[in-house]
Amino acid sequence: MRILGIDPGYNIIGYGVIETEGCKVVDYGVITTPKNMKISERLSTIDKAITELMDTFKPSQVAFEELFFNTNTTTAIPVAEARGVLIVGAKKFTDNLYEYTPLQIKQALTGNGRSEKKQVQFMVKSILGLSEVPKPDDAADALAVALCHMQTNNILSDNSM
Amino acid sequence: MRILGIDPGYNIIGYGVIETEGCKVVDYGVITTPKNMKISERLSTIDKAITELMDTFKPSQVAFEELFFNTNTTTAIPVAEARGVLIVGAKKFTDNLYEYTPLQIKQALTGNGRSEKKQVQFMVKSILGLSEVPKPDDAADALAVALCHMQTNNILSDNSM
Repeated sequence: MRILGIDPGYNIIGYGVIETEGCKVVDYGVITTPKNMKISERLSTIDKAITELMDTFKPSQVAFEELFFNTNTTTAIPVAEARGVLIVGAKKFTDNLYEYTPLQIKQALTGNGRSEKKQVQFMVKSILGLSEVPKPDDAADALAVALCHMQTNNILSDNSM
Repeated sequence: MRILGIDPGYNIIGYGVIETEGCKVVDYGVITTPKNMKISERLSTIDKAITELMDTFKPSQVAFEELFFNTNTTTAIPVAEARGVLIVGAKKFTDNLYEYTPLQIKQALTGNGRSEKKQVQFMVKSILGLSEVPKPDDAADALAVALCHMQTNNILSDNSM
């Protein structure tokens, strides 16, 4: 089974594609949108990028990290706008969409929902048999949510969205 | 010139189409998404609805109300996700996209950025020569942002998005 993990963002969006058989990385990277672009152009760039990812890698399942914002709604709004675009873009290819909280991701990968970022990254590297931690962080985070979905898929009752 | 005004939302999204020549209403109403639907299905419903609106009415310009959230980010996130979907959906038909703050809308329609909702609604009815205030409020708000765009288009330097 092929899973696409998405770490949502506006300036930078991480993606990671894994193959559960053999637990291998297929690809990972980031989508970026230039700061000098208009809002609508940045969102359209994200729409085209998710479409291309879905079309290229044809994942049967897509897992998104959930958004949490405690304080800064000014930042939250464009990130959430981009996340909406990513969800609709992915849904044009598959109905198998899932979302996980940062706590669920940390719990699934390290056994502790309050683990530090470095520990999660170490586990991403370790589980996928990589020689180094994937860079940048957004790509590693995206692989983490894909791995979280792989590991919790049969345990958690419902993270579908 | 035909303008589509959008009052963004998640449960309910207002839309209003006006023709600037003669300052007439073409259509108005709301897009709603059932609360028992999954997030991804609700966002896809919104995507299909904006596509249908653009395809049916072929507005040359689209004006969105800007989002402001002071407190409740739990509500802000799905509304912003939906707004992202609306922007990308509209942009597939035209690059002429604009956004206005609630203050700008009130200022344009009543001459006072702090006017009450009823006063704005009265002006929507009056400017468009309607016999009653359009219902529900979301549709009236969408007509207000369309009228705001019509009235400020040549005055404000840049509300394009």
